[in-house]
Amino acid sequence: MKVFNKQQIISQLDLNLAVKRLEEGFVAFSNGEVQVPPVQAFSFVEANGDCCVKSAYVKGSDTFTVKISTGFYDNPGKGLESNDGLMMVLSATTGQPLALLQDEGWLTCIRTALAGRIAARLLAPSEVTAIGIVGAGMQARMHLEQLHAVTDCRKVVVWGRNDAELEAYKAFATDLGYEVQTTRNPEDVARSANLIICVTPSREPLLKSEWIQPGTHITAVGADAAGKQELDPALVARADRIIVDSIYQCSQYGEISHALKAGLIREEQLVELGALLAGRAKGRDNDDQITLVDLTGVAVQDAQISSCALASMKG
Amino acid sequence: MKVFNKQQIISQLDLNLAVKRLEEGFVAFSNGEVQVPPVQAFSFVEANGDCCVKSAYVKGSDTFTVKISTGFYDNPGKGLESNDGLMMVLSATTGQPLALLQDEGWLTCIRTALAGRIAARLLAPSEVTAIGIVGAGMQARMHLEQLHAVTDCRKVVVWGRNDAELEAYKAFATDLGYEVQTTRNPEDVARSANLIICVTPSREPLLKSEWIQPGTHITAVGADAAGKQELDPALVARADRIIVDSIYQCSQYGEISHALKAGLIREEQLVELGALLAGRAKGRDNDDQITLVDLTGVAVQDAQISSCALASMKG
Repeated sequence: MKVFNKQQIISQLDLNLAVKRLEEGFVAFSNGEVQVPPVQAFSFVEANGDCCVKSAYVKGSDTFTVKISTGFYDNPGKGLESNDGLMMVLSATTGQPLALLQDEGWLTCIRTALAGRIAARLLAPSEVTAIGIVGAGMQARMHLEQLHAVTDCRKVVVWGRNDAELEAYKAFATDLGYEVQTTRNPEDVARSANLIICVTPSREPLLKSEWIQPGTHITAVGADAAGKQELDPALVARADRIIVDSIYQCSQYGEISHALKAGLIREEQLVELGALLAGRAKGRDNDDQITLVDLTGVAVQDAQISSCALASMKG
Repeated sequence: MKVFNKQQIISQLDLNLAVKRLEEGFVAFSNGEVQVPPVQAFSFVEANGDCCVKSAYVKGSDTFTVKISTGFYDNPGKGLESNDGLMMVLSATTGQPLALLQDEGWLTCIRTALAGRIAARLLAPSEVTAIGIVGAGMQARMHLEQLHAVTDCRKVVVWGRNDAELEAYKAFATDLGYEVQTTRNPEDVARSANLIICVTPSREPLLKSEWIQPGTHITAVGADAAGKQELDPALVARADRIIVDSIYQCSQYGEISHALKAGLIREEQLVELGALLAGRAKGRDNDDQITLVDLTGVAVQDAQISSCALASMKG
């Protein structure tokens, strides 16, 4: 079995191949061609930590993947990162373990950002006036990096909760070639940008419906567990297209679950990203529509990004 | 993270410490002090394979464990073992991966054999006239090795399905110091032995109730999935004590599930091994009673054997 560390993976992952593999994965998932057993979740109350084990096998693939992700929120006080993780890739024909990817959670971050890139490519309005980023952490950076490939817009408005974080983000985005405006008021993002990415762990709505311009596309990434929310449910209800990575999962705890439970939207309105990619559902019709993509993260992404990483490493 | 291979693990595992840790694990499990998320199961139909992911955390432990086990039944034709597996041990205080135990399934075998050893120590009659082994594979060997520590009896009667396998087993057991009788008739085992271990993947009863002598202890290990069965349900019903590793799991698909579903026994008769070890339930009262232990294998054993292996390696 091969063992690869985070630096090896970051330096060698073929991002264009990863996009292709993720798209194939979303399509397979929406076609019911992926085995995704129930997530295993642990709670370590005294250590203020949690762990989840997500596994997936895409029918016809040579490999399958078991991912272990941890979050231990007192780690920074010990000089450690809060999040860690690894993926184990096994042969789907012999069961042998093929590779241990000690990515420390990076592959989860990049597969999430690449899903955002796919969503923006499919649904952004034809002219992006500014990119809005709600959040200024690691995911906010990786999403902006990935949007570089799918829009020519080089203007970004970023919201964060403190000035130091925003200054650091500004330096990062300036280096990437963006003209950067920072703000502590989320309304500024909504008023300026028509391609908005929400990447916070918020538990209450940050964006109000009345702030959003016609024609805006929003990708909401933060609501990956019960209780999380970034958008006003009225904004979700206002969207002309609601795309989700997994109807089941998003209905349980995704961004759109709040509007669904409040009866503001119906499950029949939800379209899976895989169905959109497969051409079974319509995307944006015109530049006045509001489109929304809700990403909760599905294990098929882990299976696809890890097999891609392994293929990249061999190449 | 440390990586250990099968040979390192076999040569260094402290078996007496492992027994202690397993006993503590069974007690914790029966006290409800173990987090055991649902098993993740994959089926690879075209490759004639399967995989399961079992994970457990014992409250208060420094570590938790994720185990991946595979069975690919066409592997022998490719010069590979059918079964493979590994365990990942992570810190329960920081989430960091501590060790990858590439045991190729050996730790699962030994924790199963050690559970059989614990069962025999607790429930064997005071004088063992002969050890009976129903089955002649790897588990049949490992159980006999482990029984060495808990009974002075050095006479074994072994049943198997073919002569070559039985001859190989005879050579193995003779080397261990046993006087060995082989047979193709399971009745011979039952008539001769009063400490019987059933370790086959049988899907129909092998031992009939009327063959079994009063005072016999039986440990049934084979029924680890739906459809498997080694004992006549009437024999299960005849047992004076029925001990199980997990009431829930054994009721679902263990050896005793058949008698339970047929109404021959009641769930109230079932006692968990952990409750017996903790002194909350009675074992054998006298040398006329028939006792039965049904082992389906629980993830707490994996958590305990892997942390023990890691501790052994450090020592």
